[in-house]
Amino acid sequence: MRSPIDNYLADLHADLLGLDTGVPFQGIPAMKDADNSKFAIAIATVDGHVYQVGDAELEFSIQSISKPFSYALALDDMGLEIMDEKVDVEPSGDAFNEISLARDSGRPANAMINAGAIATISMIRDRDTGRFERLLEHFSAAAGRSLEVSESIYASEALTGHRNRALAYMLRSFDIIETDPTPVLEDYFRACSVMVNTRDLAMMAATLANGGTQPITGTQVMGQEAVQRTLSVMTTCGMYDDAGSWIAAVGLPAKSGVGGGLIAVLPGQLGLAIYSPALNPHGSSVRGVEASERISADMGLHFVRAARLGRSVIRENYSIAEVPTHIRHTDAAEKLLAEYGECARIIELAGDLLFAGTESLVREVSSLDNDVELVILDLRRVDEIDKIAVRLIHQLARELSDESRTLALVQELAFEELSSLRSFPSRNEAIEWAQSTLLARHGSPDMVPETVAVRDFSALAPLDASDIAKLESLMEESQIEDGRILRRPGQEFGGVYFILGGKVATSTLESGKAVRRATLSAGMTFGEIALSAEGEQITRVTALGKLHLKVLSAASITQLEAEDPAAALRFWKALARDAYTRVEANIKDSTHPLN
Amino acid sequence: MRSPIDNYLADLHADLLGLDTGVPFQGIPAMKDADNSKFAIAIATVDGHVYQVGDAELEFSIQSISKPFSYALALDDMGLEIMDEKVDVEPSGDAFNEISLARDSGRPANAMINAGAIATISMIRDRDTGRFERLLEHFSAAAGRSLEVSESIYASEALTGHRNRALAYMLRSFDIIETDPTPVLEDYFRACSVMVNTRDLAMMAATLANGGTQPITGTQVMGQEAVQRTLSVMTTCGMYDDAGSWIAAVGLPAKSGVGGGLIAVLPGQLGLAIYSPALNPHGSSVRGVEASERISADMGLHFVRAARLGRSVIRENYSIAEVPTHIRHTDAAEKLLAEYGECARIIELAGDLLFAGTESLVREVSSLDNDVELVILDLRRVDEIDKIAVRLIHQLARELSDESRTLALVQELAFEELSSLRSFPSRNEAIEWAQSTLLARHGSPDMVPETVAVRDFSALAPLDASDIAKLESLMEESQIEDGRILRRPGQEFGGVYFILGGKVATSTLESGKAVRRATLSAGMTFGEIALSAEGEQITRVTALGKLHLKVLSAASITQLEAEDPAAALRFWKALARDAYTRVEANIKDSTHPLN
Repeated sequence: MRSPIDNYLADLHADLLGLDTGVPFQGIPAMKDADNSKFAIAIATVDGHVYQVGDAELEFSIQSISKPFSYALALDDMGLEIMDEKVDVEPSGDAFNEISLARDSGRPANAMINAGAIATISMIRDRDTGRFERLLEHFSAAAGRSLEVSESIYASEALTGHRNRALAYMLRSFDIIETDPTPVLEDYFRACSVMVNTRDLAMMAATLANGGTQPITGTQVMGQEAVQRTLSVMTTCGMYDDAGSWIAAVGLPAKSGVGGGLIAVLPGQLGLAIYSPALNPHGSSVRGVEASERISADMGLHFVRAARLGRSVIRENYSIAEVPTHIRHTDAAEKLLAEYGECARIIELAGDLLFAGTESLVREVSSLDNDVELVILDLRRVDEIDKIAVRLIHQLARELSDESRTLALVQELAFEELSSLRSFPSRNEAIEWAQSTLLARHGSPDMVPETVAVRDFSALAPLDASDIAKLESLMEESQIEDGRILRRPGQEFGGVYFILGGKVATSTLESGKAVRRATLSAGMTFGEIALSAEGEQITRVTALGKLHLKVLSAASITQLEAEDPAAALRFWKALARDAYTRVEANIKDSTHPLN
Repeated sequence: MRSPIDNYLADLHADLLGLDTGVPFQGIPAMKDADNSKFAIAIATVDGHVYQVGDAELEFSIQSISKPFSYALALDDMGLEIMDEKVDVEPSGDAFNEISLARDSGRPANAMINAGAIATISMIRDRDTGRFERLLEHFSAAAGRSLEVSESIYASEALTGHRNRALAYMLRSFDIIETDPTPVLEDYFRACSVMVNTRDLAMMAATLANGGTQPITGTQVMGQEAVQRTLSVMTTCGMYDDAGSWIAAVGLPAKSGVGGGLIAVLPGQLGLAIYSPALNPHGSSVRGVEASERISADMGLHFVRAARLGRSVIRENYSIAEVPTHIRHTDAAEKLLAEYGECARIIELAGDLLFAGTESLVREVSSLDNDVELVILDLRRVDEIDKIAVRLIHQLARELSDESRTLALVQELAFEELSSLRSFPSRNEAIEWAQSTLLARHGSPDMVPETVAVRDFSALAPLDASDIAKLESLMEESQIEDGRILRRPGQEFGGVYFILGGKVATSTLESGKAVRRATLSAGMTFGEIALSAEGEQITRVTALGKLHLKVLSAASITQLEAEDPAAALRFWKALARDAYTRVEANIKDSTHPLN
């Protein structure tokens, strides 16, 4: 099926082909006869998918769209402060080729006008490969393919660039350029003569949108600070004397070039590029501006509309008393947990933790009752954590700790910046920790029994002492080493396993990886799931440390049924009761998650 | 516990109190002696929470911060096009009191400089209550409380505003102002003399951040288009001749006033306001600018950093064959569903559907195998749906339909804009629809049996014909009317209910509201959950349409146990098997959701 986005772009392209005002750039002989029937639109997403329509592989010279990328390279080379001394960041309100130098210092108004771009080139370091080679590599890395210079356009630029020569000497006279301006100018002309197609420009714009990392190759082409600064300057200065109405109508940082290209960037989302050579009086592509306005309005890309709503990232806030336990306890321990369960709360988060979302989280935790001793943040549905969120979460942990309260996290793939905090890979494990902590703080040592006798298993509660003795006489006892696998997916029913001491972990295999599901401890049973209609084990059961088991094997059950059908009936009723207890726990559990 | 955000603001406030450069505005006698030890910071979130530190309740005159709000009101009154004819949207690069009128038309460069603001006032309609009363109500609605004019500041403004009078007459001479300029000027002076405190300004900024809706009162104070335009102009023109470095360092639309106030807006997230009267040479509060830079950097508010990553909104993509059915079918139907289950896929989405997220969704659906006939989008975790997303989803539905494929949605609280599409309130119901659709398309009419005989119940599959006959002889038969409640939470075990024909719905009560959980149809049983350790029913079971039941009551089971213990044993074994089949289904189900 063809994507509706391709359809949309195709319709827009067809529609705007009819718009044939404007003329190609006349300043350079090699460009003035450009074919205005050529028209391309490309959108590259930050995950590297490209939508394109029209002549998206047709090459043209990059011209002024080189400026933001030269600026980013210079910023990475020299740092923001030193660059600011040479080139300011203020909109000039002037056309691209205006002089716009500060009266006293000679500092160009910004790096998007010619004077600022020439000064910028002079700041790029001449390393092993030479300055222009570095620039070309930089552009190529952002585009994701090797770009080349058009020698004919370069020759034409060099031949006709009198005004730019004047600017360069003016900059030299103010010591903004501190060396011979001629090689700087040559590199500037070369940078403007790099040949790109619309797809390249979309990828270069997407590299800016993606914080400087090229979406497909994964190369970090520019530093994040350089990107932030470059996009800021593109916002106020990218469209020359048309900046205000551009921001009002399109609302994206952008840059146009007299070659007919135009890029716009939606930070974090996508890069847009358009090519069509006929220009408006501001020197920007007529179809490019019109297409940008239409795309921004139709797709909701304007920075105000694309803003993420600062909605709460909190999905749930509940105490561990409201969650089925998965871990069985003695009656005394259960009673204590029922009493103190409210002292451990789980806050489930979802989405991205930027300032606004984290702010709502911090507010929620700060306003928790003082009785809440354990705060568990469930981060499994969180996608991204900003610097401020990391700091605020660490601060929360410290402040809770000052009050003898504890913060813990549930995270499947741990966020590295939070790795110093207590974390659990699953909610079950966090709850298990919270329960033991509460029992240790408020209970007596016998509340987490190390061993449970067969007669105390809740699964057998409906049976009387003689039935239990009978069952126990049929069981086989064993001591198991840590790590041994007791049950594997696919095995048929092998009996009911009673854990007298120690623990086991159950896990399921998903895409070949074991995913831990529950921890079972003394007093619990396993193995019965294989009694289901499918008749086979679906979880893997592994000993966690030393394990003491009694097993009522399938054969023993058959024996019991033959020898004492009435006792067997009571046993099966007890098993059915135990199974429905689990079904019930699942129904209750699913009040939180999706049904 | 004190919020770390309050702590942060308190530290920042204490730190910046030491910054004592700048002087209060000297142009108006009533303001020139403002106490520069006063300093306040307030942040209001779009959900109405306010953090504040310092003298946040101290009042001062709003001055130029009135301009964006006057502009928004004029835009709402006159529309964007008419306003654009009167006031342009380009940065002037000049100080606030520069003339900056276009040479030919006399049109002011933008609405944030005095000339543009005066022209803006002239465009606000004089309705029942008079122009200035409307303005004051507008400011008050954004602040969320009744604001008042300082008569002494107004008198001072009116007395010393010669330059503004000159601007007004200049605007009149160009017919930008079409009436007597004197009352316009009076209203302009009054608008600048409205008294606000820092908290008010933060709420007014948050109203802009919140798309024009006041966060606390919920009043729609400004239209969304007016807000988008106003924030755009604030971006390029709000800080006068300091716009470029402001965007580079702070990266937020903003407005300062010579009264010492300053607001900044993070669209969708928050409004920031600062007050301190000493000004820098650009006419903005020294501490205000410094605090804004620090807060933006520390909290990651710069528009490039606050950008949401265009990550995929797709959480899962699986076929209905991978989900436990909840609905039992005949063997032939089960076989057919196993074969065709891949033809119905569920795509689970989460987060906000803006362009980038929807783009990934559209890409996923477009690339589905052509065999996929039914596409179910599970929107239950989606928070917000943008216009473009609505359009693309409708387009997807149409394009799938053109290929005889069907799109359906799962949404708990339906998004109104998607209400014309086929929607189900739960995944279960969507799967039920998908299964019936597949059976109807690919199977024979007998595959969805209207009635099932007791001998064909899968729960009784392990039993032989004579056991089943015995059980059936103990059952009571009944015909039930639509809507009757058969089981209620809290009831003890009343027997096993066999559905011979018709359907029931099970639901649990959450916060007093019934939440539908499953639909059971012919061939299925209910009532057994009350066999659990708790010994009571936890779901409500209601007849959906006419229902034909047979019930094996608790008393009949007791009777069977007494009369024929061997048969009773086999019956209980069958029940245990059925229960473990459900436990197993839950374990499998939870491979998708959280464990």
